[in-house]
Amino acid sequence: MSFSEKKLNSKTIYNGKILKLEVDEVELPDGSLSVRECVRHHGGAAVLLVNKGKVLLVKQFRYLYGKEIYEIPAGKLEQGEDATNAAARELEEETGYRAELVRLLELYPSVGYTDEIIHIFLAEKFEFVGRRLDEGEFLDTEFMEIKKVIKLIESGEICDAKTVAAVYAYLSLKR
Amino acid sequence: MSFSEKKLNSKTIYNGKILKLEVDEVELPDGSLSVRECVRHHGGAAVLLVNKGKVLLVKQFRYLYGKEIYEIPAGKLEQGEDATNAAARELEEETGYRAELVRLLELYPSVGYTDEIIHIFLAEKFEFVGRRLDEGEFLDTEFMEIKKVIKLIESGEICDAKTVAAVYAYLSLKR
Repeated sequence: MSFSEKKLNSKTIYNGKILKLEVDEVELPDGSLSVRECVRHHGGAAVLLVNKGKVLLVKQFRYLYGKEIYEIPAGKLEQGEDATNAAARELEEETGYRAELVRLLELYPSVGYTDEIIHIFLAEKFEFVGRRLDEGEFLDTEFMEIKKVIKLIESGEICDAKTVAAVYAYLSLKR
Repeated sequence: MSFSEKKLNSKTIYNGKILKLEVDEVELPDGSLSVRECVRHHGGAAVLLVNKGKVLLVKQFRYLYGKEIYEIPAGKLEQGEDATNAAARELEEETGYRAELVRLLELYPSVGYTDEIIHIFLAEKFEFVGRRLDEGEFLDTEFMEIKKVIKLIESGEICDAKTVAAVYAYLSLKR
């Protein structure tokens, strides 16, 4: 049985720097009408860089949560940009590492209201070439033992979805 | 060193059914100004129900991705609602199971533009009481072998962040 929903019309509410908000009227499988609030996003790219049992994290103030949080290096794609390029660029800008990137997994962060896809890569071969942050970007970098990362996930101190998924996916692969 | 950002003003662009969009002007650590596009959300709650090596999944059409996707049962919190209550309610409505819920982890789905927190619970003790879907809700349920879930994550067929994180966190706990 198909549960697909048919777009009847779409209204752009906001078209910003990192997201676009559209509100669509849709027809549900039973013929009734509903509204879908749609955050349109070009997608994200992130890198899990692993060196001798430690992963490279950035610590960055995140306005939406009002605090500094740990994440793997990441950034957003330009429209139509290749995810591997974006991941390599963000890794180098934020941390100074240039790396060979291998696909690890893709994530849909919150399927109810955003179409973002986060492409996550694994880096195990890399060299340090020096970092060069974007203007207005402020962050610290740190290598953390994977065991400690897992503890901080379990205690709720690391909550960032791409970071949690990437670290666990890596451990699962290596077992 | 503190990298915190100071709100100068905030403009509500849209106030909808599941999200609110605010655009805030902020002062960065170096005194320069920037804009933060903020999706405000009441939070989500999800349940990983495990029965003899199988996890309970729902398959549901997700308009933002234009296809049916596999997820663990989940729903959104009402304003100020306790996450455990919301998780129990959504589990029972969507799948017909009433369960004892234990905290598994919290996720920040996409830290750059949404303040959503997804609270994920583990259920290993449960009973079937019959499901009663919300109006306009269409979904199938299925018990899937954890090994198959991992294969589908690795192949990119299961991408939902809460589902990926929950399954891996469970496996990590049980090792």
